[in-house]
Amino acid sequence: MEGKDRLMYIYGVNPVIEAFRFKEALQELYIAKNRLPKLKELIKLAEKHSVSVKVVDEDFINKRVEGNHQGVMAKIKQKKTITVYDAIRISEERKEPAFFLILDLIEDPQNFGAILRVADAAGVHAVIYQERRSAGIVPSVWKSSAGAVWHVNLVEINNIKYAIKELKNVGISVYALEASGERILWECNFIQPLAFVVGSEGKGIRQTVLSICDEVVKIPMKGMLNSLNVSVAAGVLAFEVLKQRHNCV
Amino acid sequence: MEGKDRLMYIYGVNPVIEAFRFKEALQELYIAKNRLPKLKELIKLAEKHSVSVKVVDEDFINKRVEGNHQGVMAKIKQKKTITVYDAIRISEERKEPAFFLILDLIEDPQNFGAILRVADAAGVHAVIYQERRSAGIVPSVWKSSAGAVWHVNLVEINNIKYAIKELKNVGISVYALEASGERILWECNFIQPLAFVVGSEGKGIRQTVLSICDEVVKIPMKGMLNSLNVSVAAGVLAFEVLKQRHNCV
Repeated sequence: MEGKDRLMYIYGVNPVIEAFRFKEALQELYIAKNRLPKLKELIKLAEKHSVSVKVVDEDFINKRVEGNHQGVMAKIKQKKTITVYDAIRISEERKEPAFFLILDLIEDPQNFGAILRVADAAGVHAVIYQERRSAGIVPSVWKSSAGAVWHVNLVEINNIKYAIKELKNVGISVYALEASGERILWECNFIQPLAFVVGSEGKGIRQTVLSICDEVVKIPMKGMLNSLNVSVAAGVLAFEVLKQRHNCV
Repeated sequence: MEGKDRLMYIYGVNPVIEAFRFKEALQELYIAKNRLPKLKELIKLAEKHSVSVKVVDEDFINKRVEGNHQGVMAKIKQKKTITVYDAIRISEERKEPAFFLILDLIEDPQNFGAILRVADAAGVHAVIYQERRSAGIVPSVWKSSAGAVWHVNLVEINNIKYAIKELKNVGISVYALEASGERILWECNFIQPLAFVVGSEGKGIRQTVLSICDEVVKIPMKGMLNSLNVSVAAGVLAFEVLKQRHNCV
């Protein structure tokens, strides 16, 4: 499987301590010389986990990250992204009907991370998102995904419309989740291979994306406000798919 | 219906602008004298919505809120909380089987707010939470709930165990949602009156709370990490209840 190997810096005492949970990803620790006395515990932790530590001038860190780094920074190897074709192959190899989530410009890192947790928990084969105008795999997504970013297959693509067309070409139905949908989620049959598009909370799914989906479906709403957090909506749809497939085994 | 009438200050230009969406709640605007030239647009907005504006010394604001207030603060009337008995009466008046969410020490305001949106969208009759060690209705919950805090019936109680016992006394089944559950969500029958307890992400539901619930159920998990954001989990369960009730009408 091909993909890009990318590095990222995370910083601050707590985020770096959390990163020790993902030792495959944690490459190296940088500690500012002038803060050494306060960071002894962190150095012990690194030794315990056999992670190499470099003592540097604080400027070395200042040049690489913006924000309150507290004198500590870690180099993180990001999960390799895969192609749409790799993603299709994964569902075939697992002998399961395809199940992909496609994110249309989810810019909020909290939501992006929570959706990755949904994808992990519900066994989604890959999450497809656009390189530009998406949160992408930034340090805050690393945090809000509680590590799911390391377990979920990620397809980072120039334009999700291209992915939608490719999926449709191989017989995968593409649904969009929007309040404007005609049928409600649980009236649909999700046994067949499918992908689901969700959009950002403010703007929803772009019209040009909606127009190439096979069907728009909705979550039924009983309230006054009738808006769900997008990660909650993704959770509701993902477990509806899982339930239907579970019940027909 | 009795309850407490409470006031709260929110601050900062954007949060105050958002509060204009809830005019019933917005009581008064305070603007620091020295920042007047920069806040003319906000004053126009207040005039348009007939909200009274007081020009004050910046110290007046400094004494009431902590944080970057940008010279503006708004007095917000909070929704009145209700009692457990009021909540039971609401479900009776709607002629629907009771459906309550009980939050066991949800301290994260983002999650608290997102759960209130779930409660609104899924027609939950009331959300029951503990006064202490909960996020409660603080300004950040106001924001993350996208206004749902104004639409959802809230029962703020000294101890949720008391509420659980009262609900059980009137024949309402109390379920807990935890990974340790035996049956999975969609194997249960949620047509009868019920309440659902969800716990904080880090600590789960307290053992003393679990022990008085009628049954512990789980969301099935297929991933490596197998942890959902608590608001996502609340969404999955709430729409499972809604679906079962919808299908049996």
